[in-house]
This record gives sequence, C-alpha cells and structure tokens, in this order.
Amino acid sequence: MIISRTLRLCGRQAKSLTIQKFYSTEKPTWPRKIFSGIQPTGGLHIGNYLGAISRWVELQNTGEDVTYCIVDLHSITLPQDPACLKENILHMTAALLACGIDPQKSVLFLQSDVKQHAELGWILGCHTTMARLGHLPQFKEKSTKVKEIPLGIFVYPVLQAADILLYRATHVPVGEDQVQHLQLAQHLAKTFNTKYGNTFAHCHALVSTDLSNRIKSLRDPTKKMSKSDTDPKSVIFLTDPPDAIVEKVKKAITDFTSAVTFEPDARPGVSNLITIHSLMSGKTPEAICMECTDVDTGKYKGRVAEAVVEHLNPIRMRIEDYSKHPEYLCQVLQEGADRASKVAEETLQEVKDKVGLGRIGSFVKRKSIKTQGN
Amino acid sequence: MIISRTLRLCGRQAKSLTIQKFYSTEKPTWPRKIFSGIQPTGGLHIGNYLGAISRWVELQNTGEDVTYCIVDLHSITLPQDPACLKENILHMTAALLACGIDPQKSVLFLQSDVKQHAELGWILGCHTTMARLGHLPQFKEKSTKVKEIPLGIFVYPVLQAADILLYRATHVPVGEDQVQHLQLAQHLAKTFNTKYGNTFAHCHALVSTDLSNRIKSLRDPTKKMSKSDTDPKSVIFLTDPPDAIVEKVKKAITDFTSAVTFEPDARPGVSNLITIHSLMSGKTPEAICMECTDVDTGKYKGRVAEAVVEHLNPIRMRIEDYSKHPEYLCQVLQEGADRASKVAEETLQEVKDKVGLGRIGSFVKRKSIKTQGN
Repeated sequence: MIISRTLRLCGRQAKSLTIQKFYSTEKPTWPRKIFSGIQPTGGLHIGNYLGAISRWVELQNTGEDVTYCIVDLHSITLPQDPACLKENILHMTAALLACGIDPQKSVLFLQSDVKQHAELGWILGCHTTMARLGHLPQFKEKSTKVKEIPLGIFVYPVLQAADILLYRATHVPVGEDQVQHLQLAQHLAKTFNTKYGNTFAHCHALVSTDLSNRIKSLRDPTKKMSKSDTDPKSVIFLTDPPDAIVEKVKKAITDFTSAVTFEPDARPGVSNLITIHSLMSGKTPEAICMECTDVDTGKYKGRVAEAVVEHLNPIRMRIEDYSKHPEYLCQVLQEGADRASKVAEETLQEVKDKVGLGRIGSFVKRKSIKTQGN
Repeated sequence: MIISRTLRLCGRQAKSLTIQKFYSTEKPTWPRKIFSGIQPTGGLHIGNYLGAISRWVELQNTGEDVTYCIVDLHSITLPQDPACLKENILHMTAALLACGIDPQKSVLFLQSDVKQHAELGWILGCHTTMARLGHLPQFKEKSTKVKEIPLGIFVYPVLQAADILLYRATHVPVGEDQVQHLQLAQHLAKTFNTKYGNTFAHCHALVSTDLSNRIKSLRDPTKKMSKSDTDPKSVIFLTDPPDAIVEKVKKAITDFTSAVTFEPDARPGVSNLITIHSLMSGKTPEAICMECTDVDTGKYKGRVAEAVVEHLNPIRMRIEDYSKHPEYLCQVLQEGADRASKVAEETLQEVKDKVGLGRIGSFVKRKSIKTQGN
C-alpha cells in the first residue's frame, strides 16, 4: 500500500530533505482590501480621530472592502489593569461607532475573539529570525525604554503581520511615521510566498498626504498629540465636554505674534490650531487665515474651540449613548468576529496545508470511531 | 449611567494604575492529570518507545487521567518538508496506537487542531521577559548550533508551557535530562497565579527511575540513541523488519571481554544490550546475566535480537495495519481534538477573563444587530 510505504520513507528521510518551492510563484492579482487595527488603551483624542478614525470612516464610505480590528492581544504586551482593559474595549467600540464606523459596511471586531490571529502568529514566527526582529526600528525604540524587555515587545510585529496577512489586506492606512511597521509583514508575505507558493498579498502602506497626521500637543506643538502626555491640557479627547475643550484651546501655546498665519515651521502653535480648525470645519488653512485678518490669536482660539465643539459634540453624545448599551456593543463585536473568522479560517487552512500542519485527510468525512486493527 | 462613567475614567487613568492581585491566592488541590507531547518528526525508535511511549501506555492503563499530544506546531520551529510533516503526523498516530495508546482511555490529539495552544502561548508570552527565555538551558544548547537563530527556537518553551497549562496538568512524564524543560511552565504558572489568582496547577516532572531512559546508540554506547544519528545502524526503529533488527544488534559495538556482565560504566556497549533485552523481555539484568554465563557477547547478541524481534513484531504489524487506514487515524485525531478543545477552551476563557481580554458582556445573549443611536 503506497501510503504506508511513503510514511516510512518520510519518517527516515525527512532530515535529509531540503525545502523546495511547492507551488507556482505566479503573482495573482489580489483584490484591494483595507485592514487596520487600533489598541483599546483608553480614550481617543482628536489626533487619533483626525489621523486615523476619520480616514477609516472615509474609506468605509467610499465603498472599499474594509476590516477594522481592536487589537487587545497587542495591548497586553505591556502590563494592563484587566478591568480597565475590558472597559476600554467597549469604550473603543462605542467611540468607533460614534465616529461613523458602520458595522454593516465595515467588518469591526475584537482581535482576541478571532483565534486565528494567534495561530497564524505562531506559524509566521517560525519563518523569521531573532536577528530580523531585533533590527526592527520599533523594537529598538521600545526596548530602550524598559529595563527588563518583555517578550511581547520583541514578538508583537509578528502578530501584527498575522493581523494583516490573515485578511490578505493589500492596503494598510498608517501615519507617515508608521510606514516601517509594515516592513515585517511585507517580508513575511514574500518569504512565505516564495517558499510555499502565492498565499499572501503584498501589503502597501496607505499614507495620507494631508494635514490629518500632524496634530500636535496643544502645550508643546513640536511634539505629536499623545494620550500619555503628562499635561492633560495638551490633549483634546473625543469625550471632553464643551467647557473642557474651550479651556484647553484657550491654554494652547502660541507665540508672541498676534496675527493668524499658517506657517507650520516658523509658528507651530498657531498653525496647529489652524490645522485642527481646518480639519474640523472642512475649510482650508488659507480660507481660515483670510477670515481671521481682523482677529488676534487670543480671539482666534475662541473660533477654533467653537469649531471643535461643533464637530465633536454629536460624537461625544453618541459615545455616551452607545456606552449605555454594552449589550449592543458586544453584539456588534460578536457579529464582526463571526465575519472575520470566516475569512481568517480560510486563510489559516490554506497556510496550515501548505506548511504541512494538520491531518492529511482533512477531507475525510467524520464518522464515529470503530475499534479496529488492534 | 455607571458603566459610561467608568469607561471614561478607565480610558484616562489606565496608565497610572498598577496591577494588583485580583483574586485570592489560596491554593486549590488540582486533580492529578498527566500531559505529554511528542514531535511528529519521523519514525519512532526503541529509545522513544522504551523511554516515553511505553510509559504513556502504562500510565493510561493504570487509570490515570492522561492527555497526549502530537506537537506539530513545535516541529515547524525548524524547517520541515510539508508533505513529510503531514505523513509523519499520521505515521506517529499509527505508531502510538500500535504501541497501545487507546483513544478511549487517553485523549490523543494533534496540537494544531486545538487553536487554544497558540492563543494561550501568546498570552503567556506577554508574561515573560526576553532575558528569562535567553537563560533557559534548552535555548543556549539549540541556539549555538545554528548561525541565524530562528524565532521558534527562542519562543518554543512558551508554547510548551501553554501545552501543559492549558490542561492544568499536574504531572509531565519526562526523561531525567528534560526536567529543566518544565522550568518555564512552572514559573509562568506561578507568575500568573500570583497576579490573577489561582488558575494553573503546578506541574511536576514525572521522572522514571528505571533503565528505560538510558537506551544508547548501538554504535556508540556513550551517546543516547537518536534518530538523527548519521549511522543508521545505531538505531532500531519500531518499523524495522526482523532481519534489519538482527543485523543491527549483530553490528552493535561491545568490547574485548567476552563475558556477559552488566556494568553500565565500565562496559557501556554490552550493558546497553542487556538494558534493551531486559526492557523488551521483562527480565532483570541480573537474571539475564545469570542465564548467559555459558555464552559470549557474540552469541548473546542473537538472544537480544530475538527478544527485540519478538517484542516489536506485533507492534510493527499493527503500525502497518493502521497505516492502511488513514481515515481512521484522522478520525481518532479529530475525536481527540474535540475532547481536548473542550478542556482547553474552558481554561482559555478563564485566562482571558482574568487578563481582561474580550468583551465584558460575554454573558450577553446573542441577538441580531439593530441599528441604533446613530
């Protein structure tokens, strides 16, 4: 019987075999597909909103095939308070819906709900080296900040690659400073395709060229706006009530020139406010400056605050509304996970089959075990 | 509404919170449970059989709660030929059944069929450091043998820990030289229990004190018998036909003394043959030496070969028989995976809940999504 002989042969000779190309390497055209992820680590601020979430919504609304993931498995690469992590997951879901993510148009799901992320992560991890991970800029940057390096900081780019490749994403919206984060996913896709035949799409960074990725701290306009900033006045959160927004904009650092002019390099403070104003109102920076020839920066702050409040108010109210319905949020995530899992399992089955994992007879129909042979 | 307020609070304050103990650390008594794994990397030899598999069967037959896993996800930490890996998986299944593993008494399954291994592997990986993994003796040993260190060699002890902890195993049968392999699993169980409350059992090594773990190469009795030995005459495989066994035992290295005496240190070659003979026949080394006062080592080899052939022949025939029924083997693995998955998912749900992954309302009953709020 052939199978029995082959089995024995493989048992003995596996060591001496070299890995060959098993499939054709013809490049198929992968359909355009967008994937992006966000960590559930607390409140969204206007930097996240203008730089990422509003782009997600735009891509969704222009009819793109979009999959968005709340990446909780990435959050735990650094210590988390479990109760807060769970609440932040629901808060992030509420915020994304409030910002316009429509679960009918976007696949929105929680990473830990889709088991295939960790599985593909393991398989891809077996196809890279320690040296490659050690050379990634994001590892160098993060590892210097801690004394004892958690394993998660080292291996998370592999899981990130799995997140993207599992859905055969062709485009990943990222900020200009995150283009290099795609490096490992691109490398792993190429390595895998070369070894086992075309399996994964090449993923391109979708970098926005507008101002949306350049929202700076209100208190130090040379730095990006960041929720980990120690000065709470530097950040506007989507959940900030109007009076807090007015107060924060009022305290924003500008300079000693009173005219409202858009000069990002020479006058970063006022230019940051104009950028925010522009993105919130839809007016160009030039139009804003034209409108404001009669006001000084002090008075201009009032107009900025007004535009921000006007834009954020309905979002804040929707966040509050969604937050009152955790059952609905869970339901959205569950439905998203069901949709994501189907795609993910299809990819994973193909990957496992190509790598040689699993049972040769996965095609065999199930039937009850009968005692036999022994 | 409380949840909405808490959500916002957590969003802002998560950074400043320190992780506390969330549960009581009272030690429950975990029921005795055996777990062990074996890689599907080719034919089993008598060293594997006497040192591991026959112990698995013994534990199974004394009514222990036993779970045995063919760890294909570990195999891919080094390059594999995919077709051979798949065939080796079925061959290993056939061999385990032929050696006496009874799928009614043991949970026998394939690691890659149970998604929770990779998932728990990721979560546990986020609870250890690079330094700890780098100091494990098995990493030091393996990493010196390769130029470019594959990530798998570094992180596989984490997956190994997940394999064990997923089933809350209390005892893991290992050889004397593998006791240290449990070190990380024990550490991770302790770390996790301290941080999140008792979740995992402490796993003990179940070291056999008899001779079974000391089967040496027939061609160099100072080394362990190994399937990766370059000299094929050094290893007896379970699938070796009688004439091959006779030939290999005949060519076994002994020494210039012709008497049959059991002196493992002074006379490793003949003592190795006596050990094999003893374990295959059930006679003690002393009884064997008493029986053989009238024969020299040359003639004695004939008796050893006879005992080995007599013991292995039925096993070899059963392996051949099972190999003719891949559908049955797949079915056994599928049923095993179904049983293992149930236990694994229960553990994983508890772990995810304690770590804060997943939806707060996993208790929420599913219902269809209604558009609301927006």
